[in-house]
Amino acid sequence: MPKIVDHDKQREWVAEAALRVIQKGGLEKATVRNIAEEAGLSVGSMRHYFSSQAELLAFCMNLIIERIEKRLTSLSLKGPVFSDMKLVLMQFLPMDEDRTMEMEVWMSFVAKALIYPELRKINDEMYDGLTKACHFVIDSLVTHKLAKPELDLEYEKERIYALVDGLAIHHIMRPQQLTQDKIEKIIDQHLQSLCIDELIMP
Amino acid sequence: MPKIVDHDKQREWVAEAALRVIQKGGLEKATVRNIAEEAGLSVGSMRHYFSSQAELLAFCMNLIIERIEKRLTSLSLKGPVFSDMKLVLMQFLPMDEDRTMEMEVWMSFVAKALIYPELRKINDEMYDGLTKACHFVIDSLVTHKLAKPELDLEYEKERIYALVDGLAIHHIMRPQQLTQDKIEKIIDQHLQSLCIDELIMP
Repeated sequence: MPKIVDHDKQREWVAEAALRVIQKGGLEKATVRNIAEEAGLSVGSMRHYFSSQAELLAFCMNLIIERIEKRLTSLSLKGPVFSDMKLVLMQFLPMDEDRTMEMEVWMSFVAKALIYPELRKINDEMYDGLTKACHFVIDSLVTHKLAKPELDLEYEKERIYALVDGLAIHHIMRPQQLTQDKIEKIIDQHLQSLCIDELIMP
Repeated sequence: MPKIVDHDKQREWVAEAALRVIQKGGLEKATVRNIAEEAGLSVGSMRHYFSSQAELLAFCMNLIIERIEKRLTSLSLKGPVFSDMKLVLMQFLPMDEDRTMEMEVWMSFVAKALIYPELRKINDEMYDGLTKACHFVIDSLVTHKLAKPELDLEYEKERIYALVDGLAIHHIMRPQQLTQDKIEKIIDQHLQSLCIDELIMP
């Protein structure tokens, strides 16, 4: 009887091994040989799963995007809106091991995408995903009449997105200086600064 | 008569060639061979200037730090304070070719510094330099009685630094989406949000 292997599951297994290799050694260490070793597979078998390194990398980055989406859809947002929006933003910040790993791998990827145009598409997808989440946060504050009426919404969306990414990068660069507690406080105070005073919780 | 070569000038020449190589091809292309070719020197002569690739990389990053410092010290800050502080922050944003190049090379370097602890020291130097500049901006607003009295200064310093770096990264990733005009407006409005209302210029 032939061995039945779930092809999709196996691709995911390989991609997860690749993510660990990238986190430990950067993208330059993400060779077929290293990834096969980490996945416990033979080098020869790798071509069954990915025909090129570019395909494997794209799959890895998609895996990260999927993980974030999964985290977002499984959030139980049951109000108050202010806390819910804070919770949404925190999904993009390196507050646990998984999110730190995602962020570190993504940083390597962004640096590479600046140079290789073929990687831009997936980088743009991540950018668009995060932009959408930031729009959702600001729009929710408006819909629920929490936002100050004088806010320039377009500007606030760009500002909050830049803030989230800047905090994420600073935390992985200097976790002792910009601690997770500080990040949470900064996000909290930033959201408060966008809201009508009377509606802010103590 | 022996040929007289200014050793320091030559090191700088090599480092500038290295920066161009990194910008075009990422850090993985920053090999002795490629840099020698870009600098118009023989591979053999390179060891006169740098004994290792790590030394060359550290020198390159120092070059970027020096450039930024030079730009900062040559700024003519003659008030109003609000515009001066905006000008200081804009030095860290990719508003011209030089600053864009610095930022792109730095991104590659940060991704690498996450993996190689020996590169952390110089990464920390840049971090400290930018932190200091952000402290200077917030402290100046306070000294000149422009800042809202209720500001949490420690938090504002981290927030403005994260904002500046986030904007810089988003601009080099998606220059058409986050334009230089938008960046300038965001920095302007952010600074305004920190200041007492009556003191804001129209």
